[in-house]
Amino acid sequence: MKTLAVMTAGGDAPGMNSCLRAVVRTALNNNLKVIAIHHAYKGLVEGDFAEMGARDVGGIIQRGGTFLESGRFPEFVDARHQKEAIQQLKSAQAECLVVIGGEGSMNGALALHRLGFQVIGVPASIDNDIYGTQMAIGVDTALNTNMEAIDKLRDTASSHRRAFIIETMGRECGFLALISGIIGGAEMILIPEQEVTAEEVAAAITEAHDRGKTHAIVVVAEGSTLHAAALLQKLNEMKTGFEFRLTILGHIQRGGRPTAFDRLLATRFGVSAVELLLEGKSGLMVGLQGREIETIPLEDVCGKKRQANLEYYRLARMLAK
Amino acid sequence: MKTLAVMTAGGDAPGMNSCLRAVVRTALNNNLKVIAIHHAYKGLVEGDFAEMGARDVGGIIQRGGTFLESGRFPEFVDARHQKEAIQQLKSAQAECLVVIGGEGSMNGALALHRLGFQVIGVPASIDNDIYGTQMAIGVDTALNTNMEAIDKLRDTASSHRRAFIIETMGRECGFLALISGIIGGAEMILIPEQEVTAEEVAAAITEAHDRGKTHAIVVVAEGSTLHAAALLQKLNEMKTGFEFRLTILGHIQRGGRPTAFDRLLATRFGVSAVELLLEGKSGLMVGLQGREIETIPLEDVCGKKRQANLEYYRLARMLAK
Amino acid sequence: MKTLAVMTAGGDAPGMNSCLRAVVRTALNNNLKVIAIHHAYKGLVEGDFAEMGARDVGGIIQRGGTFLESGRFPEFVDARHQKEAIQQLKSAQAECLVVIGGEGSMNGALALHRLGFQVIGVPASIDNDIYGTQMAIGVDTALNTNMEAIDKLRDTASSHRRAFIIETMGRECGFLALISGIIGGAEMILIPEQEVTAEEVAAAITEAHDRGKTHAIVVVAEGSTLHAAALLQKLNEMKTGFEFRLTILGHIQRGGRPTAFDRLLATRFGVSAVELLLEGKSGLMVGLQGREIETIPLEDVCGKKRQANLEYYRLARMLAK
Amino acid sequence: MKTLAVMTAGGDAPGMNSCLRAVVRTALNNNLKVIAIHHAYKGLVEGDFAEMGARDVGGIIQRGGTFLESGRFPEFVDARHQKEAIQQLKSAQAECLVVIGGEGSMNGALALHRLGFQVIGVPASIDNDIYGTQMAIGVDTALNTNMEAIDKLRDTASSHRRAFIIETMGRECGFLALISGIIGGAEMILIPEQEVTAEEVAAAITEAHDRGKTHAIVVVAEGSTLHAAALLQKLNEMKTGFEFRLTILGHIQRGGRPTAFDRLLATRFGVSAVELLLEGKSGLMVGLQGREIETIPLEDVCGKKRQANLEYYRLARMLAK
Repeated sequence: MKTLAVMTAGGDAPGMNSCLRAVVRTALNNNLKVIAIHHAYKGLVEGDFAEMGARDVGGIIQRGGTFLESGRFPEFVDARHQKEAIQQLKSAQAECLVVIGGEGSMNGALALHRLGFQVIGVPASIDNDIYGTQMAIGVDTALNTNMEAIDKLRDTASSHRRAFIIETMGRECGFLALISGIIGGAEMILIPEQEVTAEEVAAAITEAHDRGKTHAIVVVAEGSTLHAAALLQKLNEMKTGFEFRLTILGHIQRGGRPTAFDRLLATRFGVSAVELLLEGKSGLMVGLQGREIETIPLEDVCGKKRQANLEYYRLARMLAK
Repeated sequence: MKTLAVMTAGGDAPGMNSCLRAVVRTALNNNLKVIAIHHAYKGLVEGDFAEMGARDVGGIIQRGGTFLESGRFPEFVDARHQKEAIQQLKSAQAECLVVIGGEGSMNGALALHRLGFQVIGVPASIDNDIYGTQMAIGVDTALNTNMEAIDKLRDTASSHRRAFIIETMGRECGFLALISGIIGGAEMILIPEQEVTAEEVAAAITEAHDRGKTHAIVVVAEGSTLHAAALLQKLNEMKTGFEFRLTILGHIQRGGRPTAFDRLLATRFGVSAVELLLEGKSGLMVGLQGREIETIPLEDVCGKKRQANLEYYRLARMLAK
Repeated sequence: MKTLAVMTAGGDAPGMNSCLRAVVRTALNNNLKVIAIHHAYKGLVEGDFAEMGARDVGGIIQRGGTFLESGRFPEFVDARHQKEAIQQLKSAQAECLVVIGGEGSMNGALALHRLGFQVIGVPASIDNDIYGTQMAIGVDTALNTNMEAIDKLRDTASSHRRAFIIETMGRECGFLALISGIIGGAEMILIPEQEVTAEEVAAAITEAHDRGKTHAIVVVAEGSTLHAAALLQKLNEMKTGFEFRLTILGHIQRGGRPTAFDRLLATRFGVSAVELLLEGKSGLMVGLQGREIETIPLEDVCGKKRQANLEYYRLARMLAK
Repeated sequence: MKTLAVMTAGGDAPGMNSCLRAVVRTALNNNLKVIAIHHAYKGLVEGDFAEMGARDVGGIIQRGGTFLESGRFPEFVDARHQKEAIQQLKSAQAECLVVIGGEGSMNGALALHRLGFQVIGVPASIDNDIYGTQMAIGVDTALNTNMEAIDKLRDTASSHRRAFIIETMGRECGFLALISGIIGGAEMILIPEQEVTAEEVAAAITEAHDRGKTHAIVVVAEGSTLHAAALLQKLNEMKTGFEFRLTILGHIQRGGRPTAFDRLLATRFGVSAVELLLEGKSGLMVGLQGREIETIPLEDVCGKKRQANLEYYRLARMLAK
């Protein structure tokens, strides 16, 4: 084997650059040539490639986003594009590929593997919705971003005996909302995995108010059945003792310098991905199980969804009291 | 003189606690007794008072918000409430008052002064919209909060060749949006003081795109004629080369630990306010002029609005290129 | 069971307050009375106790240090003091105890358990040197503090083609130094578990210089055989291409607001500790194994030392290239 | 005029990159060609130049240090080197120069001006020791770095009833130490401008201890007559009620992303410097006077030293009580 290609795909996540650095350096240390693919699957199909040296990844361990640029390219489900991709890789003498990205990106990686190209996936998604890994790249940084935002909102909430609804990312998986809520000391947390009514929220907040709390925080995942905006309207109509405001955290959750955890996880994932390719493995995704890096077949990852642990939900309810 | 009262009023701002610490310690050092008024003007009317010692303000220099709690109480324009307030102050033997707050709070302070009560105002408002001071308490912290948010959004914007509209606070004064935009490297900034059309924004963004920029940032003050949401819709209809997303920073701008600048400013303001009261002054607001703390009559502050310096606007336009 | 006591002991660690909050709230939710012990084992012996309500732990999840104050009290090895402690606990009707602290504190907890008092230990130590848990409270925050310091030093090192030796905490365990080095992109890392000579360091740095690196970072654990100050002198005598400076991170590593990871870990540990006491368990320490909270007998914890994983050492060496 | 050259020199300071961005963009907007000089005065003498486009300064507003690299080159006092420098500038068709740096760098700029080359200086120094400007680039960021470090040390000091001596930069000017001490709530501050004995420090700390303070912080400028290490030894010999530890903040004070204040100041300085050159001015340094950018002849800057305002010293002493 002589040449390895690497790309980031899907939504960006803090730590992707740390992972790219680890992939490039591990490959170079093993005397591989490294080709970077710009603009994700679209760039792969179009041959938007550049060779990488060790210095090209100097000074990027701490940068948010991905310097290769990412993007969604749903057209890649088309087998014609998949074949073009393999053609491009072969023209560049690339014999194997690392794909760093979310669940959609793992689907693309699986397709290439099925067409006989050697590929390893690395999970990166601030939502932590990828099946087969306890933590994806970017989750810890997003949790810290949310925590800091909630800490700030609590400053002002406490100063005014006010309450905030905070909408986090998480369309199908409530992990980010749930953990953000626990570490932010939220009174209630709404996630896709657990139905809650506005009346239940109001009851919990009223109870908190009556126990003497000077503020209230409700964290709502983007994909919760009861939407944040609808909840805001209802809570302000009911008598909870607090006036509610809404803050949508939005895309700031995707940015920022990666935390210690994300840099280490991304580094370990990147090293493992290259080592697996050197061992001749393909069609696998690396994942964190406990403190260990393990692998799972891409076939088992795709089409499945990781769900938030409801044990955390119980914890959050108890600690709010 | 024996007893000094102090309160925070209006929207909270980071640094209010640092200012309270300075007021309390300076007063105690001058052998004054200090009474803290909880819940702003409402607490003043209701006699929600507590005596303060030096240790009560230990460990608060770094905390966001205000530990005395704040709030709006528009009813205070009523002369009856103003007289009740003076009655409450007199019952507590308080002979003078420091009011830390925004423009509305300075109006209340002026009313008390006109009724013969000795009062000094201290400007605190993240919007920097208070006439008579170049910087109010909280502005520098809010600027840093916005800067960090924009830095994060730029990470993800660059990774996806995307563009963001970022709405900041600022109903009548564009200072916060303007400076946030300059230090965040924004391509366009919309403020109440300067009318801009969606077409002009689109032209600037298109030009930036054609010059090779991989992302675009537009900062919009809450009080800009062209609202952020309306601008979003229009920009995504026009051809700028970028897909726009909207992020409303909201109340996170009010929170957070005060920065070095805000701690120092709040401390200096607090010391000066007490020293002015000791000199027998009343009806004044302290303000920053250059690096010096100066005073301005509350009569000259109330009813006026500080406006953003349009020279900064010109700067921002030039640097975006 | 009616009354639970809780204390923090040994060196403070960020997250101790989050853990105290979880212990108090879980206990109150289970209708236990909670007694806080101030000043660690010394306060325990002297009966420095106070009853805690739910509001007493409001607003502390985000604060560094421990609001109960901590401290070392080596005299507690004396059986007389141990008996006095149990006497004090009994006088206060306390029937069980949670001890949050480092290895020394676990020894004290074990002694009380052996004397028949029901006790559960919770590991907290920024060094991550406690046997029986993969992560102790405070480690993740310390890693992020070190990472930010190294990022800052790299800014200035890169601007001057200079090199830094950075001394971290870690007397017997190199975990903190090792992970700080990996996530900070260090060229070399010196830990107690792995002997390295100044000549080997110089060779690695010279090689990095010759490969074109514009700066170099060497991280040295406090307990490394080759001390940071000695290494500084030697490196500046040898020809590496860089001029070295020394920065001792010191006690800033112990402070700061706990990170998301530490708040969650501390919260889970605190809840588990109380639940174990409610189940009648004693003489155990909670620990993190993978993502799960498990228990280990205090007997197995005491006297043993967790060591840094040398696999990380190999990783660090490879990535430095 | 057709070509402008720009360099950073002396110790690096956060915001130098923001200033470079402003210089380059302002120059390009005025149809000047821009040449960057790498490695400061040494690079100037050796002709280490590169042409800059607008995109070369994209994404650098937020980076610490200086991407042009800096360094000291005392040999530049030699007139021969000065003439070589002008020769190099002329060979590159450069007709004017912006020098961003500290006091030593302003000396070099003055020498070039005296030899007839058009030059404008921009003050950058975390020590804030440059005569002729109230704030230099980098000071605000360094203050915030020190503030965060002191906040962390106070967490652990409070948790252990311990005290810290914190050594900051500042060889001849105590500004950084003085303001860091005020905003960090220090009990005592030692600066070069104000002699204090160990006995006076001990008396102040003992008094603070007796008033009930649970920790003590002493900030000592590097250039204080009584050195931090000597003070440590003396304080631990005297009876103050506290055990003291020493933390030397060191080079972390130079790094980090520039704050809002530094980005704005650096941007304004950079724009002004180019505008002054366009107006044909030379031999001036830009400076902040109040909120305005003004100029001062380099002749008046060189050889003088800005001193810390002793009014702040009085403030610090009073607030410590």
